[in-house]
Amino acid sequence: MSLRFTKMHGLGNDFVVIDAINQKIDLAREQIRQLADRRFGIGCDQLLLVEPPREAGVDFTYRIFNADGGEVAQCGNGARCFARFVRDKGLIDRDTIAVATAAGRMTLRIEPDGQVTVNMGVPHFAPADVPFEADAPAERYALQVGDETLGMGAVSLGNPHAVLEVDNIDTAPVERLGPLIEAHPRFPRRVNAGFMQILDAGHIRLRVYERGAGETLACGSGACAAVVVGRQQGRLGDKVEVTLPGGTLQIQWQGGDSPVLMTGPATTVFEGNIQVQG
Amino acid sequence: MSLRFTKMHGLGNDFVVIDAINQKIDLAREQIRQLADRRFGIGCDQLLLVEPPREAGVDFTYRIFNADGGEVAQCGNGARCFARFVRDKGLIDRDTIAVATAAGRMTLRIEPDGQVTVNMGVPHFAPADVPFEADAPAERYALQVGDETLGMGAVSLGNPHAVLEVDNIDTAPVERLGPLIEAHPRFPRRVNAGFMQILDAGHIRLRVYERGAGETLACGSGACAAVVVGRQQGRLGDKVEVTLPGGTLQIQWQGGDSPVLMTGPATTVFEGNIQVQG
Repeated sequence: MSLRFTKMHGLGNDFVVIDAINQKIDLAREQIRQLADRRFGIGCDQLLLVEPPREAGVDFTYRIFNADGGEVAQCGNGARCFARFVRDKGLIDRDTIAVATAAGRMTLRIEPDGQVTVNMGVPHFAPADVPFEADAPAERYALQVGDETLGMGAVSLGNPHAVLEVDNIDTAPVERLGPLIEAHPRFPRRVNAGFMQILDAGHIRLRVYERGAGETLACGSGACAAVVVGRQQGRLGDKVEVTLPGGTLQIQWQGGDSPVLMTGPATTVFEGNIQVQG
Repeated sequence: MSLRFTKMHGLGNDFVVIDAINQKIDLAREQIRQLADRRFGIGCDQLLLVEPPREAGVDFTYRIFNADGGEVAQCGNGARCFARFVRDKGLIDRDTIAVATAAGRMTLRIEPDGQVTVNMGVPHFAPADVPFEADAPAERYALQVGDETLGMGAVSLGNPHAVLEVDNIDTAPVERLGPLIEAHPRFPRRVNAGFMQILDAGHIRLRVYERGAGETLACGSGACAAVVVGRQQGRLGDKVEVTLPGGTLQIQWQGGDSPVLMTGPATTVFEGNIQVQG
């Protein structure tokens, strides 16, 4: 079977994107593993299938698979690539795109400069929602890690985040503290650990140690978590530029029950054709 | 600049191959680095440029660049991919191909089954040629590594190789001994360390700890080195199948001053187009 694909990335998080509307696709788990292999296949963090809508009120369905072939829920970097793909390929001619994913419906917007805005949902601060073991909600918690007491905020954006403020992101002990925070017993489902350096109310630098993955180039939900925690603590404004190792995201949050909006780039690297075996 | 390319691999050693005959190509070092990047570019171990012949008596010139953008001499896995590429693309209609490389002229032959035979040159056993510090040439040397005395052969195939026989390749201490042999003071230019399990006179299993690279999926010159050392020691025949982690090579050597012939596969993974930035 000959398969046409597009290789894309969002701040270094890379995707093989496949039009499963104009191509008849039925990939087995082993075939996805092959396609994702960086030497024997195309190579990617995740494979993204763009499918026709299966329900009323959406323009597309999209599915995301990890490199091991397992289907996963959703991913902010992947959502931006999806939006650029359907627009660049002429699969839709509007700037606002409604899509059904395994994590529910999403609305994506292509900005005049080509960047994509993703509605990342409403943040949840209640400890039980994170989940985080604490007697009462607070803007700052004290977390005991070995002999150190770390100040941090905790929030859920569909997944749990701890956010620590540091003086200098370049020298922050991400490799040392990341795994200890991730596996801390007060986070029963583990946690993503963000290390935030505040430059001013509209600009932070951020490194994220991701749950199950270690430090990554650009964690979209981690950028949202850092901004909502910083705004809740009165340190940040409504619109913040977040500089990550892989590039820059703009995060907007009006506070309260308003959703977090993430704006960032999606880049097409190359187009290709591959013969899929089996 | 839009560039058409083919992604290939030889036993997992992967290449971006570019026709620089029908496309006008002038890549800066930084552009090669970009193309070789596995997230922001196409991704490969090496980039291979197929160019018109610059001298009489050859069909092509080819150049190989590492992922860091530096030009390197030659590579057996790359030579096989080069041969299949020029044949599959119709750039030549003969099965025997003469090519000029930075390491000199090579003759490649495409076999009826699609595999490619590469003339890897004449092996040199003299210690000064390896280079290896020893009073006299021998089929076996005793190498002192910490408290252990290892038996090994030493040979040059353009690059230096130490070959050790082990009972079982799966349990051989490649990670522990590899770096110690590579940096052993008796190998002044360091050495590639091969660990060979002899199944019978016509079949070995091999793992190679490559100089400067660590253990790799398939080292072509390492396979040749193991076979010539084993034949020199009277343990192997003229034609030996070598099973490496990435796949299988056939090695032929008649002894003495005859050249070593390596036969193995070259696989096209996909075809693509990429926009190269300025």
